[in-house]
Amino acid sequence: MSLLTIGTVAFDDIKTPHGHAERAIGGAATYIGFSAANFVKPIQLVSVIGNDFPESVLQQMKDRGINLDGLQVMKDQKSFFWAGEYSEDLNSRETLTTELNVLENFDPVLPENYKNTQYVMLGNLSPQVQSRVIDQLKAPKFVAMDTMNFWMDIAWDDLMEVIPRVDALVINDEEARQMSGEHALAVAAQKIMDLGPSYLVIKKGENGALLFHKDEQMFFAPALPLAQVVDPTGAGDTFAGGFMGYLARTDDISFENMKRAVIYGSAMASFCVEDFSIRKLEQITAEDLNQRVQQFIDLVHFDVPQKAIS
Amino acid sequence: MSLLTIGTVAFDDIKTPHGHAERAIGGAATYIGFSAANFVKPIQLVSVIGNDFPESVLQQMKDRGINLDGLQVMKDQKSFFWAGEYSEDLNSRETLTTELNVLENFDPVLPENYKNTQYVMLGNLSPQVQSRVIDQLKAPKFVAMDTMNFWMDIAWDDLMEVIPRVDALVINDEEARQMSGEHALAVAAQKIMDLGPSYLVIKKGENGALLFHKDEQMFFAPALPLAQVVDPTGAGDTFAGGFMGYLARTDDISFENMKRAVIYGSAMASFCVEDFSIRKLEQITAEDLNQRVQQFIDLVHFDVPQKAIS
Repeated sequence: MSLLTIGTVAFDDIKTPHGHAERAIGGAATYIGFSAANFVKPIQLVSVIGNDFPESVLQQMKDRGINLDGLQVMKDQKSFFWAGEYSEDLNSRETLTTELNVLENFDPVLPENYKNTQYVMLGNLSPQVQSRVIDQLKAPKFVAMDTMNFWMDIAWDDLMEVIPRVDALVINDEEARQMSGEHALAVAAQKIMDLGPSYLVIKKGENGALLFHKDEQMFFAPALPLAQVVDPTGAGDTFAGGFMGYLARTDDISFENMKRAVIYGSAMASFCVEDFSIRKLEQITAEDLNQRVQQFIDLVHFDVPQKAIS
Repeated sequence: MSLLTIGTVAFDDIKTPHGHAERAIGGAATYIGFSAANFVKPIQLVSVIGNDFPESVLQQMKDRGINLDGLQVMKDQKSFFWAGEYSEDLNSRETLTTELNVLENFDPVLPENYKNTQYVMLGNLSPQVQSRVIDQLKAPKFVAMDTMNFWMDIAWDDLMEVIPRVDALVINDEEARQMSGEHALAVAAQKIMDLGPSYLVIKKGENGALLFHKDEQMFFAPALPLAQVVDPTGAGDTFAGGFMGYLARTDDISFENMKRAVIYGSAMASFCVEDFSIRKLEQITAEDLNQRVQQFIDLVHFDVPQKAIS
């Protein structure tokens, strides 16, 4: 199996209480790709960059199994750029600069060898661009998408067109509340799945992630309590990459297997936040990952005798 | 086994987005008692009330297995009273009134038949009062205590005297951060256990609870994603009552069993918040509890093959 992903490939400028990363490699598709490549190859990446993106990073992506046939290079433009600063507790951040650059007129064109990909992760981009990708897929088996409050504010109708076309929505708690108008996540989840998707993942950052299925099945995965979170940037995309990478690898979309995918996604995200940018992600080995997943098992495993209280 | 608990038995006035409960039955020892009585009897309650507390509630406590031999009644005073109002999302609350009344000169005296109790839950009260209880115990096997920011601010030295005398501290995330001066809970936990207790439970409200042991074992229990939280008041005390009640019932303080106790505590807390005051708690049956615990099992259970990724 392979996985197709679309999203930004970009430069970030990130300030956290632990330091300042200038001109760091970022972007949703970058994080999704580096994360998912631990599970399946190739990752069929669709994105756009300018003339300023380092060749060495592109080579590194290829070495990790990320196919760049679908990466457009705009020779006379600059790559997408985002600058942000996190609060002392890392729970909120302020966007200092957003330069769309190459994204302004991005039209995603899928190479022929991408069109049969069965597992698809649509990273956060305009819903019109996400729809354009689905249009070009021949027989997708499982399509997941991310989105953000920004698109709910300015492109609600387009969002409502693309959402019914996907199998899973992977968003954070704040986004789920805005989309549904409900505070209680269990209620928000049912309202969002009524819009179309059979599955919903609600990411809660340091408070874990919830997986919902239309038939009211529900699963919760914690975040690992880490001694130090250096930079939360990209954690959600890294989660999505691990989640979809695991599904593509196992080619099994049962709820039981999707739970495992949530755990693998959470494990990948726990690596991501331990350093700036993709610095930790680019070093992960299979052994690291298996050990980290074991930590999740140890963290939540318990055994209660049936009908223990009488 | 039996469980001794000390804490307030009080009146609350509670406003939440779901209503207003006036002169509702509240207090830490009330919640701990009603919760723990699902696991062990008798609950040896130590507290103080005024001349205004309803006899019917005292009778109800006795009917649930709560022994009131240690409940002092101050004939010429009023019971402790707290009034508070919660924010729209229930994540914060403002205290509108606190009337200490009978608490001002409370000296906890343990009846003879309490002094051999092996499991003890010291609800949130001044650290001096908590110490006075420990002084009177003959051979406690496992003592847990709650506290709050208020005591850290005004009675730090007294707090540092009582904390080394207990086996477990059961506090919330904000309190753990203030006590340790550390934001990351995994780091905060080790610093707090360095003060003495072998075990620490950090309650995170709707984001679950963490259990730590000095030897670096760690366990996480989620909160159940509920469709509606009506009133969070007493959830932490209800958790503590379930946690300690389960330990006293099973008389097993291994880490494996303490995990189960955290799950039972979380299950009890999930009932507590579904209605105002103790309204839901006073109706819980063993079958309700077993069903609720099964929901926790279903919520977090997953299975990953050893070394799944290679």
